Parts: sequence; structure tokens; C-alpha cells
Amino acid sequence: MKPQPSDRARRMPASPIRKLAALAEAAEAAGVRVHHLNIGQPDLPTPAAMRRRLERVPEVLAYTPSAGTASFLATLHAYYARIGAPLEPGQILATTGGSEALLFALLACADEGGEALAPEPFYTNYSAFANMAGVRLAPITTRAEDGFHLPPRRVWEAALTPRTRLVLLCNPNNPTGTVYTRDELREVGRFCVDHGLFLVVDEVYREFVYDGRAVVSSLTLPELEDRVLVVDSLSKRYSACGIRLGCLCTRNAEIYDACLRMAQARLCPPELAQLAALGVNELDPGFLPGVVAEYERRRDLLFEGLGRIPGVFLRKPEGAFYFIARLPVLDSEDFARFLLTDFQQDGATVMVAPAPGFYATPGLGRDEVRIAYVLGEEVLREAVRLLGAALPRYREARGLGPMG
Amino acid sequence: MKPQPSDRARRMPASPIRKLAALAEAAEAAGVRVHHLNIGQPDLPTPAAMRRRLERVPEVLAYTPSAGTASFLATLHAYYARIGAPLEPGQILATTGGSEALLFALLACADEGGEALAPEPFYTNYSAFANMAGVRLAPITTRAEDGFHLPPRRVWEAALTPRTRLVLLCNPNNPTGTVYTRDELREVGRFCVDHGLFLVVDEVYREFVYDGRAVVSSLTLPELEDRVLVVDSLSKRYSACGIRLGCLCTRNAEIYDACLRMAQARLCPPELAQLAALGVNELDPGFLPGVVAEYERRRDLLFEGLGRIPGVFLRKPEGAFYFIARLPVLDSEDFARFLLTDFQQDGATVMVAPAPGFYATPGLGRDEVRIAYVLGEEVLREAVRLLGAALPRYREARGLGPMG
Repeated sequence: MKPQPSDRARRMPASPIRKLAALAEAAEAAGVRVHHLNIGQPDLPTPAAMRRRLERVPEVLAYTPSAGTASFLATLHAYYARIGAPLEPGQILATTGGSEALLFALLACADEGGEALAPEPFYTNYSAFANMAGVRLAPITTRAEDGFHLPPRRVWEAALTPRTRLVLLCNPNNPTGTVYTRDELREVGRFCVDHGLFLVVDEVYREFVYDGRAVVSSLTLPELEDRVLVVDSLSKRYSACGIRLGCLCTRNAEIYDACLRMAQARLCPPELAQLAALGVNELDPGFLPGVVAEYERRRDLLFEGLGRIPGVFLRKPEGAFYFIARLPVLDSEDFARFLLTDFQQDGATVMVAPAPGFYATPGLGRDEVRIAYVLGEEVLREAVRLLGAALPRYREARGLGPMG
Repeated sequence: MKPQPSDRARRMPASPIRKLAALAEAAEAAGVRVHHLNIGQPDLPTPAAMRRRLERVPEVLAYTPSAGTASFLATLHAYYARIGAPLEPGQILATTGGSEALLFALLACADEGGEALAPEPFYTNYSAFANMAGVRLAPITTRAEDGFHLPPRRVWEAALTPRTRLVLLCNPNNPTGTVYTRDELREVGRFCVDHGLFLVVDEVYREFVYDGRAVVSSLTLPELEDRVLVVDSLSKRYSACGIRLGCLCTRNAEIYDACLRMAQARLCPPELAQLAALGVNELDPGFLPGVVAEYERRRDLLFEGLGRIPGVFLRKPEGAFYFIARLPVLDSEDFARFLLTDFQQDGATVMVAPAPGFYATPGLGRDEVRIAYVLGEEVLREAVRLLGAALPRYREARGLGPMG
């Protein structure tokens, strides 16, 4: 008798960001330069101070404490104190990337069959982790016309069911680049308080806010104290995606204890990552503002460049290093595929992430793509030229008629 | 309204291996040398060839492919071919330690409410991962008198329910040190075939078998082809527990695809670990046999030493680097605590892991402890002396009367 995979195995969503990867590899194998605007892998070097920590590693690469080494946790405590969100010992748990923190948060806040309200479009991997945890993501649709800001309370109320256990936000937002205001966060917070919900906030892009904005960490809202769980990561902040190191912050002792027990099960977060992370203590105070200024220049360049392409619609993104752009196409996945298989100019093309994978509601995002601006200005300029050339060619190829 | 943690959060078991840690820290703070026989953290150095790979890391510590880098996967493919278990591309998935491989395996083979048959005593963290996955571990009790070998088929049949989805083995076994024979594996395999079950085998101690034994990898049993999932790890084999790198092997394409999608959700296994792991390609062929010979000497020393203590019962362990010893005590957790709080000799004591945490059946293991022999011979000799002195003192303190 042949054993059958579980239903959740069958339901595991494929990463829409990665599913065109084979086409991109084929294009690259054929000699085409593919500019990857589809994925948030920054090109900026990981700070040398972090890499230098790896030149002398211990003789035995041993388990660390399950919650993280004392020295790495001290680094995190100093960081949160600096951003105005002081945390006590036993409120920060080091995790294997923000990914693990998110999985722990879902498991700790909801049981199988529970529901999480999440503004869509959302980071696609939320669907995957929700499926692993058996939690249903109930989408709260946000719209390009509103800059993807949060809808009013009645929309949240309408989505509430007896199984709702938490609200899941990403702020600053991947994929929309929206930065929620203090008032928006307070309103969601009040909704959570009124209905006994946890508020899980993915703040891995915390520093990446532009035009003089300041992000409001949900850890600084006193009325939310013990219902907030923050998912964090060093990946983007220090351009160190490969080290897989992040943390879960919560002032809720029961949640912390449950997550610590999950952390004990997997023994420890990566030791080498924790070693490298100590290098952040040596960083110049100007390091992060410099990085953010670089991303702001890139955002401006892309926003202006794409905005000049006929038929493209986007609001100026406020943070993170992504945005959702509406394109003059009917099927953005078909267009993304076209870019990799049927288009090139001067030996180059662009890879974008079709937006439908970021929506839970079927049919949404069909004319949208997510674009990441984690590449250098020269590459981004070329990407704008390529997209400007590709769109009319695509419309012609699909019989959509001229633009405008 | 205060939000409530999930039921699975409340049910998350605390690690019985780690729960006495605070007492050990207090003893150490008071100047007592604590010999840690309670945890499988080897003292052997991680091979220099692995550590050297970290002297020059890339400028950007970037995401790797979700299934692992091509070069690390090539190392794994070469390894499995060498041990007589050749695997095709798309049958090995690099994971963040064996821990992640186990979680993926449970999620892919069973839904919430499904059951796994697992010989007890078992590695305690199986309970934790099963709880996270919503899978019930149904214990198949093995006994010290049988050397913890597997019971006959009728015992398995009796434990079967309509919800049984898999059998979970650890071979060589943590915590018992038992190595299952080919016949035992074949019999479990036939049981799985007859009932449409997956067979998940944790083989992270594969090399650690003694007295000229050879371990039989479940990957080499042709009749089990597409129902076997093997959980593996570099932690023990290369004394590199802190790097958090392992893999999941399966020839079942549906299971592989589901696990790959889970792997995509968490983006990638640690890059630095994968870099370090390439160092294994430079290891002398005598490296692993040398390590195994060292553990065999340690096992012999402990087996003989503990066997001479009146009232201690143990069979000669066949593999891994643990065994379960029966002690002349009524409550091994109380005894383990006594060692840390009420006993020392020449400024030293011993930490052991009480066995009840390794059993699912309440009441079992009350007179047993798990002992790991991952420390040097001098330390092990002292540990034997300490346990020999502690046991009569403990029995006296608890009014149990003289031994024998």
C-alpha cells in the first residue's frame, strides 16, 4: 500500500517568487543578463566587521543556548533600547531568521483551524508558514489607490470570525513599501484589544523608511504591551540574508515560554551567525543611515523611471525596498514569463515577481508586479529602459493594442 | 480582552535534557566542576578543514538556493554514494540541522491528528516537534532486558489506529545506543508496506557503531524505496553541532516537492554552515574511523566502570554515544537534582539526564538515566568515581537503605 502525503503537504504553496527561477536560469544559460528585481537579496556588502568575526572561530563549533548566546542577546537588547523599545531578559528569543520567529509566533498564538487577519498583498511566505501551522490567513484587502494603507475598522470587523486569533502585519511593508502611521497601528491595536487578539508584526525592514519618516515599532505602543509579538531579522538591516539569524520579541511571558520550548526542540540558532552578528557592535553610527540613503536614491530612480512609462501606475513607496507597480498587462505572470523567454535588449532582461502570489483573494494582482530595488543604480536604470521597451512589445505580442 | 496562547503552546514540552540547566549553572557558579554527561555535545574539535573555510567568506552573505548550494549538495551526494545509498538530484534537501528535516518530515507525512509509532524511550525532542506538527507519538515500548531492540510485529499491530501515518525510528538509537539489525528494519519495513505507512528514520549517528558492527541505512533497503525519509545531520559526524546543518533524503517525489516548498518558505539553510561543510571534502579517509574508535574506547570505559557500581544495570551499547542505565533509585529526576544540589566530591559532580523525559508512557524510566559519552577519558573516569560515591549517599539521604 502506497503511503499518501498529508493534505498540508499537497496544499504547501510553491514560492511565487522562486517559481520562475528555472526560466531565469535558462535565460542566463543562454547568455542573457537577467536583472533580478524579483527578490530581496541586497547587493550591498555585509559589513566587514561582521565577516571579520569569522576569521577566528572556536575549535568546537558547539550548540549555543537555545535562546541565543548571552553576547548576541546583549547586542539585541542594546539595539532595542536604542530604538526606544527596551526589553527585559526573557523577552527576546534568537531565531533562525525571521522565518523561524514567524513560525513560532503562529504556532504559539493559534491552534490548527485558527485564523489570522493579514492585509493583502502580503509577503508570500506567510501563506506557506500559515499552511505549515494549519492557520488560515484571512485577507484584509488593501488597494494601490490608498497607497496600500489599512482600511477602516469596519472592514476588519467584517472579517472577524470566532476562530480569529491574531492580526499579522508587516511594517514597513513587503511587498507594497507602505509604512503604517502611528494612528493606523493604534487603530489595529484597539481592534486587537477589543477582540482578544494577538498582534504579530514583522518589522524586518524597520530602518528602511524614506522622506524623513520614522517607523513606529509596535513594541513602543504601551497599550499593546503583552499582546505584541515582533518578528525581526538581521538579513536586510545588515545585508546578511544568508546567515539566517533573527529574533522574536514579546513581553508576554506565556508566549515567550512556549516559543523558548520550541527553540529548545531545535537546539539553537546558528552559532556562526551569532558570532558574525557581534560585529554589529563595531559599526559606525552612520552605517545604517548610509544604507537607507542608498535605498532611498534607488527608490527615487525607479519611481521616477517607471512612472514615465506609459500605462504604469505606482504611488511613491514609503519604506522597505519593494513596491507593487500596476502594469498595462492582463496577466502579470504571463508578462514575467515573457520577459524571461521572449524578450531581451542588448543581451539583457528583467525578472519581476507577479503580484497574484502576494494576494490570498483569487483574481487580485493580475495586473501588478512586485519590484525590489536592491541593485545598484546603473542596473536599475537599465531595468527601467528594459521594462519600457518590453511592455509595448508584450502588448503587441499578446494583441493588446497600443498603450494609453 | 487578554489573548490566550494556543493549546499547542501550552502543551509544548520543556526539554527534559535542559530543564535542570539552572541547577547546573548554580553549582558551577558556586565553584563546582559539573561533568555534563547529560547532553550530546562532543568535546572533539570540528575538523580544521571545515573551520578554515570560514577564513574567507563572500563579501555579501547571501541567500543560497532553498535546497542548498550545488557544491554542498554535491558533497552530500558523494557521501551517500560512498555509503551504498546513491541518491538522484532532487532526493536530498539541505536543512537547518536534522531538527528541521524532522519537522518537515512530520508535516509532510501526517496531518494534524495523525499518529506516528515511535519506539520508546526516544529522543525527547521528537515529542516537541510532534506537538508543533499536531501529530501524536504513539509509543512502542522497548525494554532494557532486550537491549532496547524492537518488539515483535504483534506489538506494532496492536498500536496501529486508523490515524497512524508513519513509523519514526532513530538508528543508531538516541537515547539507548541500540543498533537495529537488518532483520529488525526489514520487519518494520514490511509492517509499513502492509499498512501504507511512511518510515522516517533519524540516522544522524550512522557512523557511530561499535564492535565491528555495520549500521544498515534504511536508504539501502530496496523494498522501501519511496516510503523512506531519512533525517540526517552533520552535527555529530563532524562534531559541528553549532553550525545547524543537515538534510532530508527521500526518493518519494511528492514528499520531496512538499518539503522543498517548506524549504522555500524559510528561504535557505545557513550559508556559513554550507561553506564550512565543504571542508569535509578534504578530510582524510581515516577521520571518521578515528572518531568512532575514540567513542568506542569511551563507551568501553563507561560500560565497565558503571557496571562495577552495585545496583547499576546496563547492556553494552551498540552505537550512537548514549545509553540508558538503570540505577538503584526510585526517582531519577530527584537523583539528578541531588547530584547538582547536594553532592560533590573533590569539588566535582556529574549531570545526567533523567530518563522519564524520553518515554511517552507515564511512569516508565523512573529508575533510569541517559548518559552521553562525549567527553574525554579522564573526565569519564572521574564521572564513574563520582556516580559510584553519589549513589550510596543518595540512597542514605532518601532512606532507601544500603544497596544490593
